[in-house]
Amino acid sequence: MSIYDSALMYADLPFEMLRTFNKRTFKLQEHLDRLYNSIKILQIPIQYSDDILYKAHEELLTWHIENFPEEEEWRTLINVSRGILPIYQNLLEDEGNPNVIIACFPLRYVLKDTSWVYSEGIRLAVPSQRALPESLLDPKIKSRSRQHYKIADLQVKGYDNELWALLLDPDGFIAEGTGSNFFIVKNEKLYTPEGRNCLRGITRQYVMEWLSWDCTEKNLTFYDAITADEAFMTCTPYCIIPVKSIDGHGLTCVGEMTRFLMDKWINHVKCDFVRQSIRWDMKDGQLRLVSNE
Amino acid sequence: MSIYDSALMYADLPFEMLRTFNKRTFKLQEHLDRLYNSIKILQIPIQYSDDILYKAHEELLTWHIENFPEEEEWRTLINVSRGILPIYQNLLEDEGNPNVIIACFPLRYVLKDTSWVYSEGIRLAVPSQRALPESLLDPKIKSRSRQHYKIADLQVKGYDNELWALLLDPDGFIAEGTGSNFFIVKNEKLYTPEGRNCLRGITRQYVMEWLSWDCTEKNLTFYDAITADEAFMTCTPYCIIPVKSIDGHGLTCVGEMTRFLMDKWINHVKCDFVRQSIRWDMKDGQLRLVSNE
Amino acid sequence: MSIYDSALMYADLPFEMLRTFNKRTFKLQEHLDRLYNSIKILQIPIQYSDDILYKAHEELLTWHIENFPEEEEWRTLINVSRGILPIYQNLLEDEGNPNVIIACFPLRYVLKDTSWVYSEGIRLAVPSQRALPESLLDPKIKSRSRQHYKIADLQVKGYDNELWALLLDPDGFIAEGTGSNFFIVKNEKLYTPEGRNCLRGITRQYVMEWLSWDCTEKNLTFYDAITADEAFMTCTPYCIIPVKSIDGHGLTCVGEMTRFLMDKWINHVKCDFVRQSIRWDMKDGQLRLVSNE
Amino acid sequence: MSIYDSALMYADLPFEMLRTFNKRTFKLQEHLDRLYNSIKILQIPIQYSDDILYKAHEELLTWHIENFPEEEEWRTLINVSRGILPIYQNLLEDEGNPNVIIACFPLRYVLKDTSWVYSEGIRLAVPSQRALPESLLDPKIKSRSRQHYKIADLQVKGYDNELWALLLDPDGFIAEGTGSNFFIVKNEKLYTPEGRNCLRGITRQYVMEWLSWDCTEKNLTFYDAITADEAFMTCTPYCIIPVKSIDGHGLTCVGEMTRFLMDKWINHVKCDFVRQSIRWDMKDGQLRLVSNE
Amino acid sequence: MSIYDSALMYADLPFEMLRTFNKRTFKLQEHLDRLYNSIKILQIPIQYSDDILYKAHEELLTWHIENFPEEEEWRTLINVSRGILPIYQNLLEDEGNPNVIIACFPLRYVLKDTSWVYSEGIRLAVPSQRALPESLLDPKIKSRSRQHYKIADLQVKGYDNELWALLLDPDGFIAEGTGSNFFIVKNEKLYTPEGRNCLRGITRQYVMEWLSWDCTEKNLTFYDAITADEAFMTCTPYCIIPVKSIDGHGLTCVGEMTRFLMDKWINHVKCDFVRQSIRWDMKDGQLRLVSNE
Amino acid sequence: MSIYDSALMYADLPFEMLRTFNKRTFKLQEHLDRLYNSIKILQIPIQYSDDILYKAHEELLTWHIENFPEEEEWRTLINVSRGILPIYQNLLEDEGNPNVIIACFPLRYVLKDTSWVYSEGIRLAVPSQRALPESLLDPKIKSRSRQHYKIADLQVKGYDNELWALLLDPDGFIAEGTGSNFFIVKNEKLYTPEGRNCLRGITRQYVMEWLSWDCTEKNLTFYDAITADEAFMTCTPYCIIPVKSIDGHGLTCVGEMTRFLMDKWINHVKCDFVRQSIRWDMKDGQLRLVSNE
Repeated sequence: MSIYDSALMYADLPFEMLRTFNKRTFKLQEHLDRLYNSIKILQIPIQYSDDILYKAHEELLTWHIENFPEEEEWRTLINVSRGILPIYQNLLEDEGNPNVIIACFPLRYVLKDTSWVYSEGIRLAVPSQRALPESLLDPKIKSRSRQHYKIADLQVKGYDNELWALLLDPDGFIAEGTGSNFFIVKNEKLYTPEGRNCLRGITRQYVMEWLSWDCTEKNLTFYDAITADEAFMTCTPYCIIPVKSIDGHGLTCVGEMTRFLMDKWINHVKCDFVRQSIRWDMKDGQLRLVSNE
Repeated sequence: MSIYDSALMYADLPFEMLRTFNKRTFKLQEHLDRLYNSIKILQIPIQYSDDILYKAHEELLTWHIENFPEEEEWRTLINVSRGILPIYQNLLEDEGNPNVIIACFPLRYVLKDTSWVYSEGIRLAVPSQRALPESLLDPKIKSRSRQHYKIADLQVKGYDNELWALLLDPDGFIAEGTGSNFFIVKNEKLYTPEGRNCLRGITRQYVMEWLSWDCTEKNLTFYDAITADEAFMTCTPYCIIPVKSIDGHGLTCVGEMTRFLMDKWINHVKCDFVRQSIRWDMKDGQLRLVSNE
Repeated sequence: MSIYDSALMYADLPFEMLRTFNKRTFKLQEHLDRLYNSIKILQIPIQYSDDILYKAHEELLTWHIENFPEEEEWRTLINVSRGILPIYQNLLEDEGNPNVIIACFPLRYVLKDTSWVYSEGIRLAVPSQRALPESLLDPKIKSRSRQHYKIADLQVKGYDNELWALLLDPDGFIAEGTGSNFFIVKNEKLYTPEGRNCLRGITRQYVMEWLSWDCTEKNLTFYDAITADEAFMTCTPYCIIPVKSIDGHGLTCVGEMTRFLMDKWINHVKCDFVRQSIRWDMKDGQLRLVSNE
Repeated sequence: MSIYDSALMYADLPFEMLRTFNKRTFKLQEHLDRLYNSIKILQIPIQYSDDILYKAHEELLTWHIENFPEEEEWRTLINVSRGILPIYQNLLEDEGNPNVIIACFPLRYVLKDTSWVYSEGIRLAVPSQRALPESLLDPKIKSRSRQHYKIADLQVKGYDNELWALLLDPDGFIAEGTGSNFFIVKNEKLYTPEGRNCLRGITRQYVMEWLSWDCTEKNLTFYDAITADEAFMTCTPYCIIPVKSIDGHGLTCVGEMTRFLMDKWINHVKCDFVRQSIRWDMKDGQLRLVSNE
Repeated sequence: MSIYDSALMYADLPFEMLRTFNKRTFKLQEHLDRLYNSIKILQIPIQYSDDILYKAHEELLTWHIENFPEEEEWRTLINVSRGILPIYQNLLEDEGNPNVIIACFPLRYVLKDTSWVYSEGIRLAVPSQRALPESLLDPKIKSRSRQHYKIADLQVKGYDNELWALLLDPDGFIAEGTGSNFFIVKNEKLYTPEGRNCLRGITRQYVMEWLSWDCTEKNLTFYDAITADEAFMTCTPYCIIPVKSIDGHGLTCVGEMTRFLMDKWINHVKCDFVRQSIRWDMKDGQLRLVSNE
Repeated sequence: MSIYDSALMYADLPFEMLRTFNKRTFKLQEHLDRLYNSIKILQIPIQYSDDILYKAHEELLTWHIENFPEEEEWRTLINVSRGILPIYQNLLEDEGNPNVIIACFPLRYVLKDTSWVYSEGIRLAVPSQRALPESLLDPKIKSRSRQHYKIADLQVKGYDNELWALLLDPDGFIAEGTGSNFFIVKNEKLYTPEGRNCLRGITRQYVMEWLSWDCTEKNLTFYDAITADEAFMTCTPYCIIPVKSIDGHGLTCVGEMTRFLMDKWINHVKCDFVRQSIRWDMKDGQLRLVSNE
């Protein structure tokens, strides 16, 4: 991508990332709907309808499926940039049209050496860095302008490289991870932060509306999280990630509801994403044995 | 630049942009100092010292000067990215080292058809979009994570394509333009917003400390701006841009102090950037005649 | 009204404005209930019960109906001031009792040349001016202390005289127009901002509780508004006003739900306020033809 | 004033209030400068220059001086309204021009029975009501949209009718009284809140720049006020009012610096406003004897 | 307690206070659950399980019941401190273990001379002091770090010794009293502030979930409170306290719903806490006769 | 101290802690002045004048000096509580008078095993916990209500037991440590946060006004701290503590200015507090050897 593109100059780059189960794209239409919302609010004059992007995505995927080993799952990426900034168009003899990039690569690379998260759970830490509130830069627009994610990660991984960041918003409510959504279970009920200062994840939506029959969007506090029965994160590549502790306060992990939702998901997509992940790690000789500490 | 680079994934890309006067770089060391501050705070493990970057920058510039027409001035760009994200390094067989990109192109392209701003002044408008406060994403780190600049521009240019955005911070104080700093003149004194929720521009520093003998950093409000005697913006390519009005409230333009500072600058660098700009536009046949409305 | 009245000195003036349908006052008791809430919270020692005001209002209206052309509808106004400030009572030889003013005039004047809003819809813009939060000056007290409404209007109408202002509150949630409430329709459901940083309009209540069977009060964001299916404003003189665009982002207009609610209203009050408005404009020779752009 | 005037509809009414010393207007030009700043920011298309208002004010005053008893001092008032709202102009057959009202009345009425404040000092209380910050409704625009002043007064006078309200801004800094500015003296230095969330009083300016040789504008907190050596308020009719206590915490009253500034003022204007006030109260038979409690 | 204990050094002292009805502890398990949540979040390495504390509490209570007059009810207190601060452990030759203190004393002392609150109701006032938001110091952790409660009490009792403080949070929503929760009744429905910036009282929970069949947690504003039909406070020693007025604005008192809930409570615990309180006061010769003003 | 004291019930306990140099109390009058400011603002009806406390303090110290080994320095503590809460006074047969506790113990215990901080410097980390702003609970009142200090310490020491917490205020400015003030050195100038959301330390005052000739109080940001040349903390027992890094970003340590100020202090009090500390640690066999990493 050109360094004179608005995408690099202003992080002005709406995008979506997806994954397959059994080589079938998951929730492509939902991702495209969100993408076109981002495009609308950023007023990017895209030349293509979502039908065209849908087809292009599926063709690219098919080509990869046909030309690579059968056991792969795929991760795809759709980037939409506004194009070369007007002041550089003369310089580059470019008319400044939006650029759409669709990429496809094995999911295996992204999940490498992390199959242990499903059984052991991850440890979260709340960094000093806060989430940006929607009033300043709306996280519901899935764009690349998210330097603060990287800063949050640097803060917690500076302490311990296996910590994941859990961001609070400036009001002190739990917002999200740096690329994942957060859920707690309390008295057998499921809760997740209101879809305000976080990305409204497609996976989050799937858990809320399809997997669970009773999930409440609510302002959640650190106190709620610490005193919960279970907690987990959701994101596209991992689906559901059990949480073992938050700032050192332990939670039941893997909890009953978490396990139930993972199983239901696996049954629904007929693809055991946990075993898949373990299999890839075993191949690499990297399977981590988890003590029941 | 690769779409798998941290620069594109997180807008995690500190950078600097410079210009020449009479083909000599202006304030290169100051730009590098700020760049290395950004690199430090973002913890990018850059392989090069600032000496090396200094030399590389000057060599690239010299090459351009020697190979292109004599009357050009040059705009240069230094981008420092963290490199390919770890999860994609295997995929791309890349070791994930930081990338430094230095680019050089004629300044003329950036200033095209805008020489009228020096005599007519620009019209500012305050968009609904607010500046990000340093507590959330520090604007003093000059990085690309600035989608909100683009949104602010879209808001005011949606009304009138010649408006420039003047951002307030969430406290209601004037912060900056989208890539420029703001000054007012009141009773022959010069004021500029505290270096808090704005980029601390090299040009701003130059005006404050070298050109002026009495400039005060202060929380400035919309009221202060509207009731000022004069106002101007500063940025690297234009140096000083007189302001004609703010949200439709007229100001003296070009004011006495503004003109004085422009003249002092021109004398100091021995390069009349205003005439230069007019000359470039006349060549293009685009000189805009300004009515004395 | 005296310039020494608390009403003018402090904008200390609770009020209500109503309209008739077929010359019958709409929701008079609801307006009086809200007025007496305002009076209670402002501690104005009013001499009259709401029964007396009810009767006075109806008598004044009857007199106008009997003495003016039959086709008029009427707009009425009830102002309650605290009276002359104590320090001016001696000066004016006034005992400083509260003043109640009830006025009545043809609705036609207020709606003049605007019948096109029902078919074309209005265009909204978000000004830089924010709504005052209830913690500082409660908008639920319907008083005249609302200079910020005028400033918001000046901001958007400075760009384009036909724009209506849509105010955000300091948290970035949508609050209200400058004298109207806001609704969106998404997936056939109706949403309106929580009754917190906005006037709790009588019309808003009527739409929420009587016209609709499923309206949710919710914190609404700019993102929600832009990605909605339809939107409309409500206020006493216009009833329902379809929204065509927000900051240039187009919405379906007039949408199905909007039209359904307008029709239901017309049926309920047995008075077609849309045709009425067109008839008045035709008489004035001002009917605006709307293109289907 | 018409109830259809923008002044009453939106509290859209910039104004100034002045007083005379020895029947000469004090700081008329400064008041007019501030008035024209308010008019500019509110975009009221006033037909008159400030010269004309200056002359009109002085003529009105002269007439009063010549026709009323010699011992009077005068209070004057300049109100500027935008005029009848457009939607009511047809109704009232009014072209909607701005209205300027200048009024003149004996200062004596305003100060009635309060000469004791100069020797006894007033007691301040901090109400729950906060000052509006400039980011929401700029107090530097002297307009009538100030219902919150009345609410603050109701809160403290509900406890004790002789309390005066001292407002904090939403950040917790001391802002102003409801129509007066606040100063403290600490270690023989004078401090007053930054001119941000308060009216920048003409009297405040006079004390800061003319009477004192060393006054600092600073964010002042409740702690600073309670631990100060002395405190006083300033406003046009009273000039300087010593403060006896804040929320029940006593201060030295009347302190040395306060007395010094009052004396210097009296010498400067050659008019003993304290004795004048006592004289008026004695005539009314209302002089309050102050115990030295 | 040692002055070198973390409890005194940092107010680092989670605690619970309970009462009996007919000499049986009320909601002991609920209090212990909350206590252990506080202990968890404060990371106090307590040596005892909640079973042990449960038994210790009951034994202490039994001893008191057996050794004191039969008509007493009891108030108990559980304090858990982290122990002597490490830097003082050598000094004191103390190993720094947590300290648990359980105390028991007659409830009668706490309620002394206040039986009139049940029939007359209390008067609330909103002080300038705001509640601490959970983002800064979570009120759901029941600890002693609450100097601001004392300041709020000092503020309102400085005006009138019988006023109780009702705190707003920094957003302007009603939070709680200084040791009690707040409820309103409007149109026969019960509302209480969201459990966010207030202690989540055990009594509050009991009223919400057991006594009432329809209570809504909601952001409540001053406006909501003033325009409510009834209001009451809840806390462990008094159970339910009717509210007579808020900042001087009267409410129906004792209202129907308030009385209904008190009666239901009395029936449930089979202990008339109102009569009990009157009986104790009569014994003391302190019964206050309430006028029906 | 009784658990029924207001000190324990509300953390309502103003206090001061001091140290000696060569067995002479340092800045006793300054500490007492601050203590009496705290007492005034908290309205504690203390029976003793500051003269009496001064004498009592010095007598207690003399007694310790005369009865303990000569090489000790002393740490003293003055606690002032409001006394037993009224509702418990009957219970305890206590009249509820304020309690003043003065304690004295060897400074050596507090500084144990930490002499390495003077040569190695400490590592700071910014926790998620924010400082309380003065608008909510004024840190300038030195009271025990500071649970949030303990929480901040738990957060950073949970990562690494040698980290010290550096708190930001809710605006994102640097406030203070948990019991210490913060300074930076930049271009040979000294800066410290404005005395707003931090305790105004006696040591801070001493460094600002006596040791340094040019120290500026200023809003300092994380960016300012990271890009500073040196940094140090100040507090009574340690005097000056050099800072080695902040969130992993290294600073020059021990810097020139830091060393200069330490030397000046040592000369002024004629007591080498650094050597003293090393001597105590050597005795304990605990001297830590510092690598020059």
